[in-house]
Amino acid sequence: MGWPADVPATAHLFVASTADLTDRLDVSGEDAHHLARVLRLRPGETVTVADGSGWWRAYRVESAGRAAAGAAVALEALAERQREPALAPRLAVAFALTKADKPELVVQKLTELGVDRIVPVLAERSVARPDDGKARREAERWRRIAKEAARQCRRANLPVVEDLRPLQALAGHPGLVVAERNGGPVDALVEPPGGELLVVVGPEGGLAGGEVDALEPWARLDLGPHVLRAETAAIAAAALLGSARAAGAGRD
Amino acid sequence: MGWPADVPATAHLFVASTADLTDRLDVSGEDAHHLARVLRLRPGETVTVADGSGWWRAYRVESAGRAAAGAAVALEALAERQREPALAPRLAVAFALTKADKPELVVQKLTELGVDRIVPVLAERSVARPDDGKARREAERWRRIAKEAARQCRRANLPVVEDLRPLQALAGHPGLVVAERNGGPVDALVEPPGGELLVVVGPEGGLAGGEVDALEPWARLDLGPHVLRAETAAIAAAALLGSARAAGAGRD
Repeated sequence: MGWPADVPATAHLFVASTADLTDRLDVSGEDAHHLARVLRLRPGETVTVADGSGWWRAYRVESAGRAAAGAAVALEALAERQREPALAPRLAVAFALTKADKPELVVQKLTELGVDRIVPVLAERSVARPDDGKARREAERWRRIAKEAARQCRRANLPVVEDLRPLQALAGHPGLVVAERNGGPVDALVEPPGGELLVVVGPEGGLAGGEVDALEPWARLDLGPHVLRAETAAIAAAALLGSARAAGAGRD
Repeated sequence: MGWPADVPATAHLFVASTADLTDRLDVSGEDAHHLARVLRLRPGETVTVADGSGWWRAYRVESAGRAAAGAAVALEALAERQREPALAPRLAVAFALTKADKPELVVQKLTELGVDRIVPVLAERSVARPDDGKARREAERWRRIAKEAARQCRRANLPVVEDLRPLQALAGHPGLVVAERNGGPVDALVEPPGGELLVVVGPEGGLAGGEVDALEPWARLDLGPHVLRAETAAIAAAALLGSARAAGAGRD
């Protein structure tokens, strides 16, 4: 059990499955291009490789070829594979679709902050209303952004980015928390029923009163005395809950 | 004592000084354009007006003219002026210059999250190295961004955005906190010596070891097990410390 970021490595990348974390690992394609040509890795440097579901392993670069036909990097394991610690409770953030490129910023930041599950939702006051095809393409783009952010911040597990759904599909979640002014403190939230905290952040203009009631939230989280933009609320909630979760884990 | 966001208002704007928060207030120029033409305010609606140093007052729109020659809005006070609560400790964030438009994102988010003072610094690994003229223009732009964010999030005081300075100019600050992996918990930081918490966030690549030592930090703040981008670290630190400060205030 340990974190990839505890290893002084030059880069972090993902393979498709746990079985791919072999003693010797040949990297090709885009990843090899990134390692050999963008980062210009040299033999002897350390990289960490993860499977996206929590397993990872440290490797030493054996060779890094930059041939015009395609970069190729050979890695040799430095240690056995290990598992990134799974923190409790699980942390999920649902955010109502907002304008422009804000969802990309939110997905990137929530990934860095250790959120386990990201749920885009359509609320009453959501401005963007993509059709099914566009919603699918956007979800795919957000998954790529999550993976890129996980690579950059050295997570071994990838957050689950769900498909877009109506806000009310979340009703009945036992650990549902609404972020709002004059809500309660973060410390009270570290042991949610069901084992997953699901924080719901409204769009610009907020969730409508009826929407909040229909969700029957387990708790309300205070995010300070000012009116936060939707993306700021999502990022602040993730930072607060992630930190409270880590502090709670430290107490056990 | 109260927060502008406690008033159900349609808009929030700033005047130049406390003395301008008169019983009757005539708004012209850009602000009037924003109120009358962009937000299309109508007589009877409520707005809050602040002086940027913590005083504010609620007003009722008497008239909102949209003449081609220039918009003009007349406001009538609904109540006496009051002061936004000053939270303790004061909260300052110093961030090392990073790439592109990241400082703008940081200034906007720190303003929403209630940071009192924002200090751009040049660290050893800062990539951007603006000359004096450019540094002054950027600081001016960041002040405009802070004001716009304060308008949007309904703060009555504006954060102070300092001029760019070398990182080591911060050495000797009694409440200096470095954000880093495996630092300590946030709760320990709510009573800094000197009354101001100053969190220092490094550039991409982090602060160099010697830089941290030379700052002689009072404390180190943990921001989780992953490698955060510089702007994410600044925003997360502000969210955590702002929340801890509010919780501390609630205990008194």
